[in-house]
Amino acid sequence: MIKTPYLLFLGDAPDALAAKVAQGIKDWRPDASIGQFRMAGCNADMGLPEMTLAAAKEAGAKTLVIGVANRGGVISDAWKEVLIQALDAGFDIASGLHNLLRDEPDLVDAATQNNCQLHDVRVPTVDYPIANGKKRTGKRCLAVGTDCSVGKMYTALAMDKEMKRRGLKSTFRATGQTGILITGDGVPLDAVIADFMAGSVEYLTPDNDQDHWDMIEGQGSLYHVSYSGVTMALVHGGQPDALILCHEPTRKHMRGLPEYQQPSLFELKDVALVLASVANPNCKVVGISVNTQHMSENEAIKYLESLESEFGMPAVDPFRHGSGRLCDALQNL
Amino acid sequence: MIKTPYLLFLGDAPDALAAKVAQGIKDWRPDASIGQFRMAGCNADMGLPEMTLAAAKEAGAKTLVIGVANRGGVISDAWKEVLIQALDAGFDIASGLHNLLRDEPDLVDAATQNNCQLHDVRVPTVDYPIANGKKRTGKRCLAVGTDCSVGKMYTALAMDKEMKRRGLKSTFRATGQTGILITGDGVPLDAVIADFMAGSVEYLTPDNDQDHWDMIEGQGSLYHVSYSGVTMALVHGGQPDALILCHEPTRKHMRGLPEYQQPSLFELKDVALVLASVANPNCKVVGISVNTQHMSENEAIKYLESLESEFGMPAVDPFRHGSGRLCDALQNL
Repeated sequence: MIKTPYLLFLGDAPDALAAKVAQGIKDWRPDASIGQFRMAGCNADMGLPEMTLAAAKEAGAKTLVIGVANRGGVISDAWKEVLIQALDAGFDIASGLHNLLRDEPDLVDAATQNNCQLHDVRVPTVDYPIANGKKRTGKRCLAVGTDCSVGKMYTALAMDKEMKRRGLKSTFRATGQTGILITGDGVPLDAVIADFMAGSVEYLTPDNDQDHWDMIEGQGSLYHVSYSGVTMALVHGGQPDALILCHEPTRKHMRGLPEYQQPSLFELKDVALVLASVANPNCKVVGISVNTQHMSENEAIKYLESLESEFGMPAVDPFRHGSGRLCDALQNL
Repeated sequence: MIKTPYLLFLGDAPDALAAKVAQGIKDWRPDASIGQFRMAGCNADMGLPEMTLAAAKEAGAKTLVIGVANRGGVISDAWKEVLIQALDAGFDIASGLHNLLRDEPDLVDAATQNNCQLHDVRVPTVDYPIANGKKRTGKRCLAVGTDCSVGKMYTALAMDKEMKRRGLKSTFRATGQTGILITGDGVPLDAVIADFMAGSVEYLTPDNDQDHWDMIEGQGSLYHVSYSGVTMALVHGGQPDALILCHEPTRKHMRGLPEYQQPSLFELKDVALVLASVANPNCKVVGISVNTQHMSENEAIKYLESLESEFGMPAVDPFRHGSGRLCDALQNL
């Protein structure tokens, strides 16, 4: 577990997009985000109090979280200076960067000297078991997409928040770097060794109260040829009771694959349900979550209404209209 | 590439089953297997010439291949002595054991001193790319099973052999430890990191002559919840033109999963074809390979005939009746 609260390190982020990890943490863990640390040239702003390391320490911050992508894939000397100061001040550091904190000898030295932890959330730290497929208690919901990056994490986080607001038992289960930094815990599924993928998902979503829901963060797509194996491990390791279909209707081709088109929501529904039924014969597709950011409000509403009448289930954009109706569908299961 | 010819190390194998890796190599690479090395207490016998290290060296052997499982998961002192003698005699060593040669300091030292190679085929040595899904030239055939261990490797090896016998262009593409030791090359797919699985299969089966067939070794099953993600990566990374369905009809439950039943061949056919069509819309299911070892000859023939009439495609046990009719199906595509 990564200790909270966090000081969000925005570094010299050239724009808001470069700091999207920090944005995710601030949006979903406002309670854990007590301040931001910006360097010269930073053009991102989370609207959090600007804090020096000393001020953040005094305010109780435990971990400096790198909420920004590093330019050119290297940890610059300018960053290094701040990170070492942070370790000297007693902060842990958490990072989802591709190049690992643990591969930087000066950071490792400073962490050791100060008895601080370096969390590289991109690499697994657990020896996950091979999946055994045994039925677990509690309920699980998984978002599956027609493509990568269509809003699966957002949907699961929004539903988790709404379930909790209703006083229901729910836990968001992170399977990617941003999700892990948001929750402080999870499985970096795309970095797990093939044989242990499904087992890591079982480990992440263990037995629980009968009325508890795990909201499992989806990854990839059953129709995305680069990552479909990862998605498959979620469908079988997660043994979901409920599937939410996620879609971005304006996309021209599959993300990163110009030769590939998205499947229809009908195709996804059929294939996902057949596969999910292997691990859980009672699995149901309960709703549709659409990312309508590239549509007008009118277009979005018309599109969602047409999906509802075609599929006979709620179809919403949780960002625009909330995830309440998707949570209703879980409660009605 | 692992250098041939091989001296097969049977160690102190308590029975034939413990030496099944050696059996596979001997069956499928008789040309590369010039002798066997047995220690006191060995109850396995490949029927190859018994050779000392010196005799094998003189006969041209380049690599000592560990063809036996180690008891209790440790490389014993008795084995160690032989392995170090082999390195001192100039042999490379190849192993598919779970515990790695490279983790044994004395073996590493001896290999370094003698300028010999230690091949741990269970771990990847290549930085595989992320799959790009681009259409590749040449043809590919993939065996998919209703379960693990139903004869997928055997089927691909038998078809590769028959294709070559007919003078056609064919390459067996190994994706597991035994397959890699048989061919001297391949991808240990179950040990590849999740994000790179499909890419490793693309790497394994690159552009080729239009009339060349890759016979890709299958792994796991789309219906085996522990390993289905690995299978999915083969279906999408391999972008097969032809699928062979593999089945073992007498199995009581999915291998290692007592709560799970095998799907029917019809279920497998439908799901595998829908998924394979994502990467290759022209993919066809062309034949059925059945492991009938637990059936009488009469039962087997009756069962295969009934499958043929139900599915309208050849259904054979390649071990009993050869793989010729499966190869006919490829040629007729």
